[in-house]
Amino acid sequence: MFIDINCDLGESFGAYTLGNDEALMPFITSANIACGMHAGDPRIMHQTVQTCVRQGVAIGAHPGFADLSGFGRRTMGISPAEAYDLVLYQIGALYGFVKAAGARLHHVKPHGALYNQAAKDPALAEAIARAVKDFDSQLFLYGLAGSALVEEAKRLGVRTCSEIFADRTYQSDGTLTPRTNPNALIHDPAQAVGQVMQFIQEKENWAETVCIHGDGAQAVSFAQALYTHFQEQGIQPQSPV
Amino acid sequence: MFIDINCDLGESFGAYTLGNDEALMPFITSANIACGMHAGDPRIMHQTVQTCVRQGVAIGAHPGFADLSGFGRRTMGISPAEAYDLVLYQIGALYGFVKAAGARLHHVKPHGALYNQAAKDPALAEAIARAVKDFDSQLFLYGLAGSALVEEAKRLGVRTCSEIFADRTYQSDGTLTPRTNPNALIHDPAQAVGQVMQFIQEKENWAETVCIHGDGAQAVSFAQALYTHFQEQGIQPQSPV
Amino acid sequence: MFIDINCDLGESFGAYTLGNDEALMPFITSANIACGMHAGDPRIMHQTVQTCVRQGVAIGAHPGFADLSGFGRRTMGISPAEAYDLVLYQIGALYGFVKAAGARLHHVKPHGALYNQAAKDPALAEAIARAVKDFDSQLFLYGLAGSALVEEAKRLGVRTCSEIFADRTYQSDGTLTPRTNPNALIHDPAQAVGQVMQFIQEKENWAETVCIHGDGAQAVSFAQALYTHFQEQGIQPQSPV
Amino acid sequence: MFIDINCDLGESFGAYTLGNDEALMPFITSANIACGMHAGDPRIMHQTVQTCVRQGVAIGAHPGFADLSGFGRRTMGISPAEAYDLVLYQIGALYGFVKAAGARLHHVKPHGALYNQAAKDPALAEAIARAVKDFDSQLFLYGLAGSALVEEAKRLGVRTCSEIFADRTYQSDGTLTPRTNPNALIHDPAQAVGQVMQFIQEKENWAETVCIHGDGAQAVSFAQALYTHFQEQGIQPQSPV
Repeated sequence: MFIDINCDLGESFGAYTLGNDEALMPFITSANIACGMHAGDPRIMHQTVQTCVRQGVAIGAHPGFADLSGFGRRTMGISPAEAYDLVLYQIGALYGFVKAAGARLHHVKPHGALYNQAAKDPALAEAIARAVKDFDSQLFLYGLAGSALVEEAKRLGVRTCSEIFADRTYQSDGTLTPRTNPNALIHDPAQAVGQVMQFIQEKENWAETVCIHGDGAQAVSFAQALYTHFQEQGIQPQSPV
Repeated sequence: MFIDINCDLGESFGAYTLGNDEALMPFITSANIACGMHAGDPRIMHQTVQTCVRQGVAIGAHPGFADLSGFGRRTMGISPAEAYDLVLYQIGALYGFVKAAGARLHHVKPHGALYNQAAKDPALAEAIARAVKDFDSQLFLYGLAGSALVEEAKRLGVRTCSEIFADRTYQSDGTLTPRTNPNALIHDPAQAVGQVMQFIQEKENWAETVCIHGDGAQAVSFAQALYTHFQEQGIQPQSPV
Repeated sequence: MFIDINCDLGESFGAYTLGNDEALMPFITSANIACGMHAGDPRIMHQTVQTCVRQGVAIGAHPGFADLSGFGRRTMGISPAEAYDLVLYQIGALYGFVKAAGARLHHVKPHGALYNQAAKDPALAEAIARAVKDFDSQLFLYGLAGSALVEEAKRLGVRTCSEIFADRTYQSDGTLTPRTNPNALIHDPAQAVGQVMQFIQEKENWAETVCIHGDGAQAVSFAQALYTHFQEQGIQPQSPV
Repeated sequence: MFIDINCDLGESFGAYTLGNDEALMPFITSANIACGMHAGDPRIMHQTVQTCVRQGVAIGAHPGFADLSGFGRRTMGISPAEAYDLVLYQIGALYGFVKAAGARLHHVKPHGALYNQAAKDPALAEAIARAVKDFDSQLFLYGLAGSALVEEAKRLGVRTCSEIFADRTYQSDGTLTPRTNPNALIHDPAQAVGQVMQFIQEKENWAETVCIHGDGAQAVSFAQALYTHFQEQGIQPQSPV
């Protein structure tokens, strides 16, 4: 049995450092690299791609809204056509560094508000999935398990990877508890591991990748706890092939 | 006998329109498409790539400084490492649309101040040439005839295309008359054609591509005059292969 | 009897020109000057303020979302606190040029999506009105007639100016016909004048300023028709005092 | 006897945090607040102004190049007219928050490459000084002791404050040792204090303000050492009035 552990990386920008990229690397199997719109810049992208290559972590593009001051977390009313172009631009930009490194682009995972809007809006989801497919039909598209993004991608024949969150609580209907809710976040590594194991055991083929967040004080210990527990349980951390 | 006619295209941005892209297409053989840093945005890039494909115009990336308000025309003190990353990012970003269109990326031509600085600074030139080579060793790098950019590219084994300007005057030492000089620009199409023909006839293998500017009232008539004159003289307008 | 005619100006950016600012000046009484976020840049702001001073047109700040590529027309999910800071920043930025010119800042009018969202969202409206008041309690806040923005401003004691549109059609409930509707725009100057006159005559104290758009082929002829008609009807075009 | 201790503050941006603003406050007498171009954003500017008001620290605008990814540290070839507008825009933007807080804008200090270029280029220096004067003739302009910026400001009748650096070494001709030189930075607080005291004692009216850098591990201990030493020597830390 296999599972992927993905994490957002390369979110620094210019003089600004964010995240614990180096420390997380040993405990993840795929990386979602910011592409310069909501975070990241050419230098950071270059460095992050090289680190992934060195550590054998699968490389993914992490396109977001062109909203650096809001870190791509604010909703934006963009059309599907705009989303298609925005995503294609960012996939290509990251691919520049991937190709120069002689590496392989493995997946695409939308960031923040773009991810959330695409989870609910089929037209937006379809545009994103089409951008991924038009660039390279072998890419995986990561999306929230059960979301419109995963559904539209499947409909288009794009390979998908359904994502669950280790450090976010879920509501009874299977959706994420909104961040505005005080108990939206899980702070206990054991609880995070327990939730993930429950999803894996109860819902077959539903949870294909687990997302851990790269920022925050506990990011590394969460990642390590999860990685170690999977190995102990005979579940091999591995990016989808 | 062959010659390439290149023009900067896709320089619009958001609600702002610049240039006469559609009208110029019939009279050029290769296009340098802005990549979103000094001009251009994902939508414009998408459209311009599609127009080039439809018209059979060779597609090039036109990377510039991240200086939208200065249109990439202001000098910037960037390091060679920064230039490498900046150029690779923009090549990749344009390639997103090229690949999705099933087309081929043909060349790279730096824009504005980046072009001018690279003409004189071997370290900057080498970094740009290396970015081009690392992305795709079959790409042509367009640079000012006789410049450090062309020289460094040749040294690295990158295919080059030496550029002359139809609408700019030259000084006796072969360099461009600075724009601050009142007679820097040529306004008469016949004079422009004459200058180009002189370069072609006198300096063999020196002028491989002629640059015409896409903005300005006369851009289209210049392009047409040049294109027609070449054909009349038995010189075939064609992008390098 | 008096009425104000306002127009968005200073929407050029860097190498990009937009609008017919100079030609419109004689037919407007107040200008909403873009502040560098959705359009405009320091040079354009400087020039536009100087033109307003020379022509005796009242100067207003026209703050918008930080979305240059979308021209501030795309909705953004910003908090009231973010809106307060965003508006205050832009008012101040324009004020730099106003103060240096020895002129007076007269009003603030939010732009595009910020304007539309504030028309419906009282919390956002309140934040914007508070920013205006905190900067200068004598400023007028321009908002859609009958909107939450005007209402919240009045509640805070901010001086308001209720706006109607000459070139947009209205629905039976008094709201603007959405731009997605084919008959959203009025193309006939006579119809535009007629609509404005009807509002002025039927709804007392409701229409205090008429907005005309500065771009588009007809902008100048619309402005002139309106200005002339007002004068003929004994209605004096004048910014509120 | 008095001396000013100034520090760059408010250099965070969006999700990115930089510097130790709160910890430094007790040991400085004037703050140079980033204005959103090279660092800072409306929210950070708002918060930083409020903190300065609360702590009684004099508020200054810290305008820089529009180069967020380079943190305003890369040279840019801007014209004096562009510099005038760029500085005026940023002074105004910060003033929005200063005025709303009922506080006073005290000074302007250019940032990074703009500061360095203006130290050597009289035309650029004159443009910056004129922007400061045109906004408010009572503002102080902070510049490198002995620089063209201070000289041009004095010539225009702008009040100046000559700056020395505590944590940078000087060359025999009185200029700063370039950062590319391994011994450009002083790491020992005692040495920093010693250098400052030497300047104060030897060159009367030359050192009116001491700059300490807000980032770096030692920023707070440097500031504290300097502040304490001044007090022990009977030199009162105080912003110029």
